[in-house]
Order: sequence, then C-alpha cells, then structure tokens
Amino acid sequence: MIPTLPAHSDFSLQNLPWGIFSVAGNDPRVGVAYGDHIIDMSVVAELGLFDFDVSVFYEDHLNPFISLGKEVTDAARSRVQELLQEEQGLLARHPEVFVARKAARMHLPVRIGDYTDFYSSIEHATNVGKMFRDPENALLPNWKHLPVGYHGRASSIVVSGTDITRPRGQVKPNHYPTPQFEPTSKLDFELEMAFVIGKDSTLGEPIATGDADDYIFGLALFNDWSARDIQKWEYVPLGPFLGKNFASTISPWIVPLAALEPFRTPGPTQDPEVLDYLKYTGNGNFDLKLEVTLTTSAGVSKTISRSNFKYMYWNMAQQLAHHTSNGCNVRVGDVMASGTISGKDETSYGSLLEISEGGRSPLAMPDGTERTFVEDGDTIVLRGYGVKDGLRVGFGEASGRVLPAR
Amino acid sequence: MIPTLPAHSDFSLQNLPWGIFSVAGNDPRVGVAYGDHIIDMSVVAELGLFDFDVSVFYEDHLNPFISLGKEVTDAARSRVQELLQEEQGLLARHPEVFVARKAARMHLPVRIGDYTDFYSSIEHATNVGKMFRDPENALLPNWKHLPVGYHGRASSIVVSGTDITRPRGQVKPNHYPTPQFEPTSKLDFELEMAFVIGKDSTLGEPIATGDADDYIFGLALFNDWSARDIQKWEYVPLGPFLGKNFASTISPWIVPLAALEPFRTPGPTQDPEVLDYLKYTGNGNFDLKLEVTLTTSAGVSKTISRSNFKYMYWNMAQQLAHHTSNGCNVRVGDVMASGTISGKDETSYGSLLEISEGGRSPLAMPDGTERTFVEDGDTIVLRGYGVKDGLRVGFGEASGRVLPAR
Repeated sequence: MIPTLPAHSDFSLQNLPWGIFSVAGNDPRVGVAYGDHIIDMSVVAELGLFDFDVSVFYEDHLNPFISLGKEVTDAARSRVQELLQEEQGLLARHPEVFVARKAARMHLPVRIGDYTDFYSSIEHATNVGKMFRDPENALLPNWKHLPVGYHGRASSIVVSGTDITRPRGQVKPNHYPTPQFEPTSKLDFELEMAFVIGKDSTLGEPIATGDADDYIFGLALFNDWSARDIQKWEYVPLGPFLGKNFASTISPWIVPLAALEPFRTPGPTQDPEVLDYLKYTGNGNFDLKLEVTLTTSAGVSKTISRSNFKYMYWNMAQQLAHHTSNGCNVRVGDVMASGTISGKDETSYGSLLEISEGGRSPLAMPDGTERTFVEDGDTIVLRGYGVKDGLRVGFGEASGRVLPAR
Repeated sequence: MIPTLPAHSDFSLQNLPWGIFSVAGNDPRVGVAYGDHIIDMSVVAELGLFDFDVSVFYEDHLNPFISLGKEVTDAARSRVQELLQEEQGLLARHPEVFVARKAARMHLPVRIGDYTDFYSSIEHATNVGKMFRDPENALLPNWKHLPVGYHGRASSIVVSGTDITRPRGQVKPNHYPTPQFEPTSKLDFELEMAFVIGKDSTLGEPIATGDADDYIFGLALFNDWSARDIQKWEYVPLGPFLGKNFASTISPWIVPLAALEPFRTPGPTQDPEVLDYLKYTGNGNFDLKLEVTLTTSAGVSKTISRSNFKYMYWNMAQQLAHHTSNGCNVRVGDVMASGTISGKDETSYGSLLEISEGGRSPLAMPDGTERTFVEDGDTIVLRGYGVKDGLRVGFGEASGRVLPAR
C-alpha cells in the first residue's frame, strides 16, 4: 500500500525532492521524500524501472545521480510520480520501498565542491549598509549593477540537525583598546535559499542567463551562520572569512527546479537597466514563503521572521551568468546561496542583526527573555514552501542548535 | 641503471616531490620527480616495497595517498630515497620505473576541496594599501593582528602549462560614466606559494600553531591571476570574486614539508605582539628564492621579479591556526596560498600592479616594448628553490600563457 499523504505536507506528489538518508544498520543512500516517508531509491532501483546505471542510488551523495543530467533525473522523478498514483501499482506491491522519515537519519545531500554566497536582497543590503556604513548611501555604487557575491567555505556546510558550536575569534569592539580572542557575543543566523549546480560547465565558457536553468538542479534552505563581531573586525579589505566559515546549515532535501515551476513570479524592476549579459526575460523569481523560528533551551518558541524568496533583486539565472561571465567554471554539487533574504519591515528581516537593529532593539521572547543575538541552547529553524491552487511544495527545515563555545 | 641527476636540478635526492602524470596511452597516476625523470610509483608499487594499499598510486589525484598520513608518506619518500642511492639495487634493476619528464603530461596534483588565499606579505599589503587606499595608513588596523585571508575558487585552479583566457568582466574606470562589460585591460599575475593540507581536522576543533606541521603535506608555486579592473569595481564590501576566480595556476609537483626543513629560517619580529593562539616558537619561515619571468609571444624573456618566501610576515602555521581558530575544519587536498610575496623594492615585487606602480611606471622589455599589465601571448613563469650547503630543492615551475578574450 502506498502511504497516505498528510494534509499540508511539504513533500507532496508535486515535490519529490532528493536526499541522502540512512536507517540503523544501513549505509547512506538516495531517497525521495513523500509525506512522512522516504522512498528508498536503492530498493526502487532493484525493481528494474530505470534504464540508467542505478548504482548512483547506492552512493552517499547525490552528485553521481545529478551528473546523469536533467533529462534523466527529471524523467526518474516523473516515473516515481506516476507510480505513486497507481494504487495497485508496483510501489503499492512493494511496501519495503517506503521508510518512515522519523526513523531515518539525513546526511549532507551533495558533495560540495565550491560554495558561493551572494548578497542579492536589496532590503538586506540596504539595512546592513545603513548600520555599518553610511545611512545616506547604504548601497555601494556597484550593487545595482552586478549581483555582489563572494566565495565561502564548503568544508563546514552541515546538514540540518547538526549542532553548531559557538565560535571563538578575534574581536575588537570600539571599547577594547586591542583585539581579544573570545567566544563571539554576536552570533547570528542568515535566512537564505541555496541552489545546487546540476551540470559541469567548461572553464572559459560563460553561462547565459537563458541557459542557467539547465545548470540548476534544485534548491534548499540555507542558514549562513555569522559571528558579527568577528566579521566586523576581519572583513576589510578582503571580505568575510572566520565570521562565516565556522558553519552553514543546509536542509537535507534538494527540491528539483521542475517542482518549483508553479511558483515562478516576476522579479522587481531593475533600475538602472542591467548590462546585456545580466538581462533576463521571463519570471525569474519564485514565490516561496520563508520563516524563521527561534526556540530556547526551555522549549519556548517564536517565529521571528516571515520573508519570501520573491523579494530577491537579483535572480538565480543572473547570479549564475555573472559568476561565470569571466569564464569561471561550475561543477555538479557546487552550492550558491542567495544571501540573506529580507523583506520590507522588521517582521520579514532575515537576520537578528536587522531584527534587533544591531542589538539596539532587543527581540522579546514569550518567556519574557530578550534576544539581540543567538544564545547558547537556542535552536534556529528555517522553513520554506510554496502554495498555489491547492498545491504545496516545501523544503522541510534547516535546523541548528547552538552549543556553548568549547 | 638509475638516471644521472643533472647538476642544479630542482628535483634532487633531497626533494622527491609528488605529482600526477601520464604518458601517451596511459591513465594518470602518481609519480615522484627525480632529475629529468619521473619515478612511476604504480610500477614501483608492483615491486612489493610497501606494506600499505598501493592502489593509491593508480589514482589520478594525490588525496588517497596523502590520506594515508605523514608517517606513511614520509616513510615512502625515505624508501625511494634509499633505493635511489643503491647503484645495483632494486630500482637500478627495474629501469621501467623511470619515465622521461619531457615525455609526460602533468595533471592537477590534488583534488582541491577548498582554496583559501591569504594576504600575508607586509610589503605587498603596504604597496597595495598605498595605491588603493591611504598612503599614510596603508595597512588596515587588523593587518598586524591576524593573517587576513579570504576564500577563493577551487574549480578554476589549473596545473602549470594550462593556457589562461583573458577574462571579460564588469569594469568602471573613473572616466566611464557607467560600468561596461569588456575584456580586462589590467590582467596581472601574483607570485605566491601554496601549501596542501595533509590531514583532515574536525569541525569545531582548532589546530594549534605547534601542531600545524602535521596538517601541511607539502608546498607548491601558485599564480593567483588577477584582473585588477574587475577586482576594483566588485570588491566592496565582500572581497575579490570575479577579479580572481577565472583561473589560478599551481605547479605540478608538491614538495613535501620534510624536504624543506633545511631551509627553515626565523620570521620577522611581529610587533605588536600577537595573541596567544597565533604565537609561534621556532623557525616558521622558509628561505626559498622565487622568481618571475615574462616571455612575449615572440620569445623575448625577462626576469621581472626576484623575491623570497622568507619575507612572509605571517607563517603557514599561523595561517592555519587562525583559519581553524573558530572551529573551521580543513580536509586533505585543501590548498592555502600565501598571498603575493613581495620584497623591499621593485626588483622583488610579486605583481605587475606593484612593479608598474599601477600602470604609471611601465616595465621595459628587452625588445623595446613596455608592460604595465600582462598582454595577450605573454607567458608568466614562476620558479622557486632553496639552496644550502650544496643542497638544492626546487619547485619546477608554474607557467601560464595568456590567450586573447573569446
């Protein structure tokens, strides 16, 4: 029997995201999320449904599967979609393909070669620019001409559910005469979306905005944890480094781009007009609701932000076209994150830096405590989903609990 | 018979660097450079000399070999060193282990997970700071307190001998009213050394300066090609991105740290005193002569810089301790580069930006032409070596020819 799909499940028939899971005693392998279950693709593979090399489903990362190409991976997803609709079909006759999600442990879904982080929300860039630089000229001169981005650290990207140790680092607040090495006192989250590269490109050959979709396998939630005090002292002139690279959290299920097509929406008008290589025709943004919950060690929860991926000023196609415009190559499994996704007001800001105005305006928690930044024992959960015409496609969650500095 | 070692060879008995090579018709595999020859380690492995899994020598990157650990890799090198000294020994009886270097093609030696670039030469940072910022305050306040670094792109690191296509990018010189997308007109090299990580560390656990050597497998030459005009327009506030990530060139032979021990030398006095986690006892620098040659498409050559790795303000142990001080983990095959290595005057500057004073003082070539930056058809070759008491250990070269923009 095919498991019933719970109402409002993120992992609907329209979704079918890919991930790497394991159950007690077994090696990690490829699965597809469906409601409260995981379809074990290594078991499905044995049913003889696919004409490609199904050994990719026994791997502990999605890269070999993704490398088969979108034609193959999209067809595999469609095939699973069909089978799930056959009440007396093959899957119904093979209940062993379904594993309860709560019995499974999720793993990092891809082996990440390079990780790039953009800075593409105009609200976020404006908020940060006002705080750290000039309130009158919050956006730097290049911001509207190109999607500003930088390289991050791939080794420290962890899957949702992994605890985050509060980092130590060199800080120099204004009232310190000299820098000190100590645990960060300004630990923050950043609400981001990330896309996973689905196709290798060639060094020296740019990807046009119109071809970008071919290179985007799918999307996930992404929390780019940040230590604001470390970042502030270190970041001139070469950008963020130890203020970011102690950890980033990615959600375990990669939602294929095809599953997100119903949620496409136009992006904002870009003024001034962008250069030719950044021009994009069509609906480049996605209407995906995002939210952030903070839960204290005592279990007190508050949703501290509700944002939307559609707020992005620069879309993914433009980010990818810019990234490769100089010939830089991309590889299957590379991750590119959006940058913090903030909306117009403090209910939709994607970081505590913005919500608490750099600490000046603490956030009230239901238990009477306050937060300017993330405290030890707090858990930050990002969630995201699209809803349209009764259709729901969601990302599950990207969750991380903060442990005290060692 | 064991091949004769040519006088002044970089690849002496004391050196024995590791690389990945192939000869016509064969797959890439592990080799050791010795004089004008390569010792084919996959053939040596068949002689039954080693008690570890010798399949690592059939791989097309050094990571599996390096992952065996320094005790194993250093012992393997010592064993080869012994055998090369036995005139009637095993290697002498198996001439098939020796391949002429000129008959071989070299490949990228390691699969690089993450690439980090530091900025650790005080002369370079001062020169650049004077040019781009304030001549009176060339060094930013953090510079002497921590080894400034940033994440670079691993996917576009290429092995010596790979042509470099002049990148296009967004530039906005002062006389342009709006940015334009065009081939860089300020293509530069950067003379750097890189080290390859030899051991995985654990996320959350810093590496102390005193333990850093355990994590450094070996060193190579590194040319961090840069497009100064792209970099200048894009780099605020998040650092270099497309101005750097179109290509970096690494030399093919990784010289083990053990081979460089004779060239250790004290570093500069660090004033102000550094924080405890950055303190280093012993000789943290290496006296390695470095030089840069520019050769035009007509074959006219000039050595345009002679520098030395010993000039570094921050040593590799300090770089690694800083990089992991927040718990950031490193993995076998990660590459960390020094940043441009400049000496005290223009004969020892490690970039054309500095040599030509940002273009104001062109470099005269022997054929009467001038260079402010690198031109199409030019080849830049980095070389490096240590010499002491008749001993020579060298890196070969990191070479790249510039092709016109596509």
